[in-house]
Amino acid sequence: MRMYDIITKKKRGGELTKEEIDFFIAGFTRGEIPDYQASSLLMAICFVGMTDKETYLMTDAMMHSGDTLDLSRFGELSVDKHSTGGVGDKTTLVVAPLVASLGAKVAKMSGRGLGHTGGTVDKLESFAGYRTELSPEEFMRQVEEVGICVIGQSGELAPADKKLYALRDVTATVDSIPLITGSIMSKKLAAGSKSIVLDVKYGSGGFMKTPGDAEALARKMVRIGRSLGRRVAALITSMDAPLGYGIGNAIEVREAMEVLRGRGPSDLREVCLSLASTMLHLSLGYSPEEARALATEALDQGLALRKFEEWISRQGATSLELPLAKYEKTVYATHSGYLNKIDTEAVGNLSVSLGGGRRQKTDKIDHTAGIILSLSLGDYVDAGAPIGVLYTTEHPEALDAVASALAQTLTIEDKKTEALPPLIYKTILGDEE
Amino acid sequence: MRMYDIITKKKRGGELTKEEIDFFIAGFTRGEIPDYQASSLLMAICFVGMTDKETYLMTDAMMHSGDTLDLSRFGELSVDKHSTGGVGDKTTLVVAPLVASLGAKVAKMSGRGLGHTGGTVDKLESFAGYRTELSPEEFMRQVEEVGICVIGQSGELAPADKKLYALRDVTATVDSIPLITGSIMSKKLAAGSKSIVLDVKYGSGGFMKTPGDAEALARKMVRIGRSLGRRVAALITSMDAPLGYGIGNAIEVREAMEVLRGRGPSDLREVCLSLASTMLHLSLGYSPEEARALATEALDQGLALRKFEEWISRQGATSLELPLAKYEKTVYATHSGYLNKIDTEAVGNLSVSLGGGRRQKTDKIDHTAGIILSLSLGDYVDAGAPIGVLYTTEHPEALDAVASALAQTLTIEDKKTEALPPLIYKTILGDEE
Repeated sequence: MRMYDIITKKKRGGELTKEEIDFFIAGFTRGEIPDYQASSLLMAICFVGMTDKETYLMTDAMMHSGDTLDLSRFGELSVDKHSTGGVGDKTTLVVAPLVASLGAKVAKMSGRGLGHTGGTVDKLESFAGYRTELSPEEFMRQVEEVGICVIGQSGELAPADKKLYALRDVTATVDSIPLITGSIMSKKLAAGSKSIVLDVKYGSGGFMKTPGDAEALARKMVRIGRSLGRRVAALITSMDAPLGYGIGNAIEVREAMEVLRGRGPSDLREVCLSLASTMLHLSLGYSPEEARALATEALDQGLALRKFEEWISRQGATSLELPLAKYEKTVYATHSGYLNKIDTEAVGNLSVSLGGGRRQKTDKIDHTAGIILSLSLGDYVDAGAPIGVLYTTEHPEALDAVASALAQTLTIEDKKTEALPPLIYKTILGDEE
Repeated sequence: MRMYDIITKKKRGGELTKEEIDFFIAGFTRGEIPDYQASSLLMAICFVGMTDKETYLMTDAMMHSGDTLDLSRFGELSVDKHSTGGVGDKTTLVVAPLVASLGAKVAKMSGRGLGHTGGTVDKLESFAGYRTELSPEEFMRQVEEVGICVIGQSGELAPADKKLYALRDVTATVDSIPLITGSIMSKKLAAGSKSIVLDVKYGSGGFMKTPGDAEALARKMVRIGRSLGRRVAALITSMDAPLGYGIGNAIEVREAMEVLRGRGPSDLREVCLSLASTMLHLSLGYSPEEARALATEALDQGLALRKFEEWISRQGATSLELPLAKYEKTVYATHSGYLNKIDTEAVGNLSVSLGGGRRQKTDKIDHTAGIILSLSLGDYVDAGAPIGVLYTTEHPEALDAVASALAQTLTIEDKKTEALPPLIYKTILGDEE
């Protein structure tokens, strides 16, 4: 078998066989297929696409390229959630303890933030003492006893994806639905949960820019995950504005705890309830309506908050207090009007400038840094009223520049835009397919 | 400027600017742009294509990536000919001395053969003593005094193409009209002739498989060459059968000399007259009809043959005798019928098996080896009559296998195929465009 023939076949629109896909994934992971052949195949895939069968075979090969987590001891109860990445997306901090408080098992490895999107593990480290590295035994025991454990990625989950993603990232071959599907699903499947709920973001701060593209990706991921023996569902949710008002690590944890207290921003609460009820539907077998009622009760009656506190403490947090920023600066509206549009990705990048995220993998995070917006999409603001507050401990020198840049990211106009994007565009339950 | 952005722009269908194309060609030639980024751009070009402006800019950048030959001392008289490669294509050996005998100046650097297609320099080395390496001064003096000199590639003509072609060859990105145009024209333009006639082959032994693709390539090359200040024309000729009957080095020289004597196979003579009259039209300003009449006369009255002998002797050949093969084997038809189809590429590869060509760049050539077919397309053959004769000195052990393989490459059927492909599908004179 020759890589040249595989590239030619795909370029001419052919469907690759299991042998060809295994040859590519295994050979590339072992370093036997050179980057220049891999990148030309990846570009051909961007143009030609891949059938579901090819995507399934590729995902399977990538999943088995490294370690896989065995969660079979939890039977049908294990459930995971994955977001394609957003700004102010702190839903894991709410939904994980929420579903655990009702009996599901959340054994989760989570990523760190890079660029404009944050990472759950960084947020959790806002609690002094929180341990993101546990031994496999500690990890499993905590899931068994508490129902929830969230750590950083350990072991070699889907090394094929790691290597492929690094190449896609420098060869402009990221935006291909089958390649994204293989990348996300190989890692999620290797992480072992029986049920998986995907939160596919669309809009100015999302990975996919239009709801149509997000839906195509979501449906493909659901089909591939199901064909590989898992229960998979997806929500397509808006990232045309940050979720909630807060962006930044400790800031987001605080907002998530508000939702756990039955309060908090309504958009954040709504996405959390939808995600959690879908997770409960898949893992515990409740109907969507039953699951929704149970999740609402667990939030409003403090069950989820108690589970959150138990989890954080058990995982090493010495206190439930969160650090506060040394410096802050309020930004005011220069003219009156309606907040019609937010450049969400830009807002995420401004939080990074204050120390709230990483530009490069090696950057250190200021857990106190970030932004709390004073408005949400569609709100009216008077000239001179606040539009947001900036927080930082490590980068006070950035406050002035970020303040004027923040005003640029918000489009405030005399006339209110009629159509705001739907917060939850669609729910794709695996069993519909 | 970032290569990533250039790839993204092309992938999305954009037109690259001069700055972007120069950045890519110069950076890649200097080794600053990695192969994996170059190959992903090349694959995107295979799908999206390039406008004439982009192709012009790329060709120009590639032409100027190394040495260029200055033939300005010959004014308007310098003329070159390029074939996209064929089996049994010995036209250069006829047309170069033919046009030189009428006053054109042929200062030609020619390639060596690889795979199923032969190279003119290899054929010329069938003459003992023929020198393929001359100093620049010797080269120019011979063109001035004899009107013709053909040597191997020297210096660094279009090194960008050399590097790009090596990458295209292993990443399945060869068959793209703008990339082929850039590759061929950058070398031809660097080689300095004022007029260039292209022989674009189509069919089973040609670079392009259909006449339509060959025409699209030919028209693009003519436009690009003209926009870079040269007189360019193209012929689109059939390679659905070898040109003439002979394949192999000394074998082809002998057949070319037959044409120079006013005899030889009619298809070969016809293509040579068409190429030569187009070359004379471009370089000496004759009308196509005048040029054709002059070329015919030069062949039939021995002017071209005398120029051939003068050229070969001046360039070091110690004798006009050609070496003969030690071994030969006649292949006979197993059934009667019409020769309706030839797998021309396969016939070329069989000649290579006898020692007549190279599989790898380092292989040594047996100048006596090759095949002389006994039939041309459309001929009737009786069972038991010869279909061809195999010749070799170095590989007698291959004769039996090649004999039975040769029979497989010829499709002999009861009923004669109606439509044979036209020998000369089209002539594209530069001034039509």
